[in-house]
Amino acid sequence: MISKNQLKLIQGLNQKKSRNKHNLFIAEGVKVVSELLNSNLNLHSVYVLTEFYTKLNNINSDKINIITELELKKISNLKAPNQVLALFNIPKTDDKISNDGLILALDDIRDPGNLGTIIRLADWFGVKSVLCSSNTVDVFNPKVIMATMGSISRVSVEYCDLYQRLKDINKPIYGAFLEGDNIYKTQTTTNSVIVIGNESNGISEEISELITNKITIPQFGEAQETESLNAAIATSILLSEFRRGE
Amino acid sequence: MISKNQLKLIQGLNQKKSRNKHNLFIAEGVKVVSELLNSNLNLHSVYVLTEFYTKLNNINSDKINIITELELKKISNLKAPNQVLALFNIPKTDDKISNDGLILALDDIRDPGNLGTIIRLADWFGVKSVLCSSNTVDVFNPKVIMATMGSISRVSVEYCDLYQRLKDINKPIYGAFLEGDNIYKTQTTTNSVIVIGNESNGISEEISELITNKITIPQFGEAQETESLNAAIATSILLSEFRRGE
Repeated sequence: MISKNQLKLIQGLNQKKSRNKHNLFIAEGVKVVSELLNSNLNLHSVYVLTEFYTKLNNINSDKINIITELELKKISNLKAPNQVLALFNIPKTDDKISNDGLILALDDIRDPGNLGTIIRLADWFGVKSVLCSSNTVDVFNPKVIMATMGSISRVSVEYCDLYQRLKDINKPIYGAFLEGDNIYKTQTTTNSVIVIGNESNGISEEISELITNKITIPQFGEAQETESLNAAIATSILLSEFRRGE
Repeated sequence: MISKNQLKLIQGLNQKKSRNKHNLFIAEGVKVVSELLNSNLNLHSVYVLTEFYTKLNNINSDKINIITELELKKISNLKAPNQVLALFNIPKTDDKISNDGLILALDDIRDPGNLGTIIRLADWFGVKSVLCSSNTVDVFNPKVIMATMGSISRVSVEYCDLYQRLKDINKPIYGAFLEGDNIYKTQTTTNSVIVIGNESNGISEEISELITNKITIPQFGEAQETESLNAAIATSILLSEFRRGE
């Protein structure tokens, strides 16, 4: 069962302020929690239906709370809660993550689903470092964690003054613009940065100044000129294109 | 204002049965409704806040209902309703859509957001025909329409017995499998069909029999072997790869 204090703690963790105060974040559902239990992340506590309990091997029983479906519903952010919710410690990261290899830079990504999908793509395409502008949605937001499908444990994320941070990186910086070079005909290098712009406004003026290589994903249909691709979809196409030659 | 009958009609249209009975579907929000008003779709009625009213040119005033924010909230499916909701007639389509060019075939896509994003991608990449298995979510579901961002008016969609339908198409049929050929090293042709599998189960056994070209999107990171890409993300990478040589 869940105590009142636990309930208060968990519900509070939907807010960034509380996540930072307690240094904890929420992960939900069989797939995500299973992956994070197998990662190097530090488990704080886990709340499980009896169905999932048998899958919890080598976990200190003090950390396990068996709960009812009704209790899970109370703490879950999902329409259809899925057996388990766990709290993990937010990992300590270096102030500055590595500049090696292919890097993603996110210029004010606001949608948690987009950020989670982008982290998952970074994992798939072997991008170790994701730089986020300070206005990008918090990566430990429960909806972001859900969309990462567990890949958060394999990708380093740094929130920073993106302009200053990119200014100090000595690599080609790519960004997608309507008037850029056709990405399919551009020679790319994986030792570079790809900037992904905000869902509504694209790449900000300030960051645009730092882009060394303006590229574009061409349209093939009769789609309107004003039409654009979703931020996560654009990320997938660009990462695929940067990696395909390897 | 909205009459009781109108309210009942609109709320009913969240159900497929009612959509088919009335031959109507719901579109919401400034972007989607604006695009559909500029398409060849037939407007049934539109419910607008005064802010959006001025943007309604050349529309028969009998079809326009000016409503309050409170009324919009009542009929909207969005957390943050966006100025306008409209009902359009479900367009008559041919029983069989065209077999020309690059075709997408969806084998039980269940998530409305995924289907909408896939339709939007089809539009971007010039895919005119999308074949859906009969268990694929209804394309006129309001959440699907929202995610298409208006592109539904430029893509033809046919629900069918996908096995029979594909059996009768004389083209290469591609599908993604773990053990397929590396898509980046495969010669593709745009005169073909790409099958996209269900979110949880991938391509069904029955449809697998018809796949002539098994392909795979390789991983570059340390992602788990069991990890997979989201259906819409996989679609974007495959369509980009099929079109890039043009």
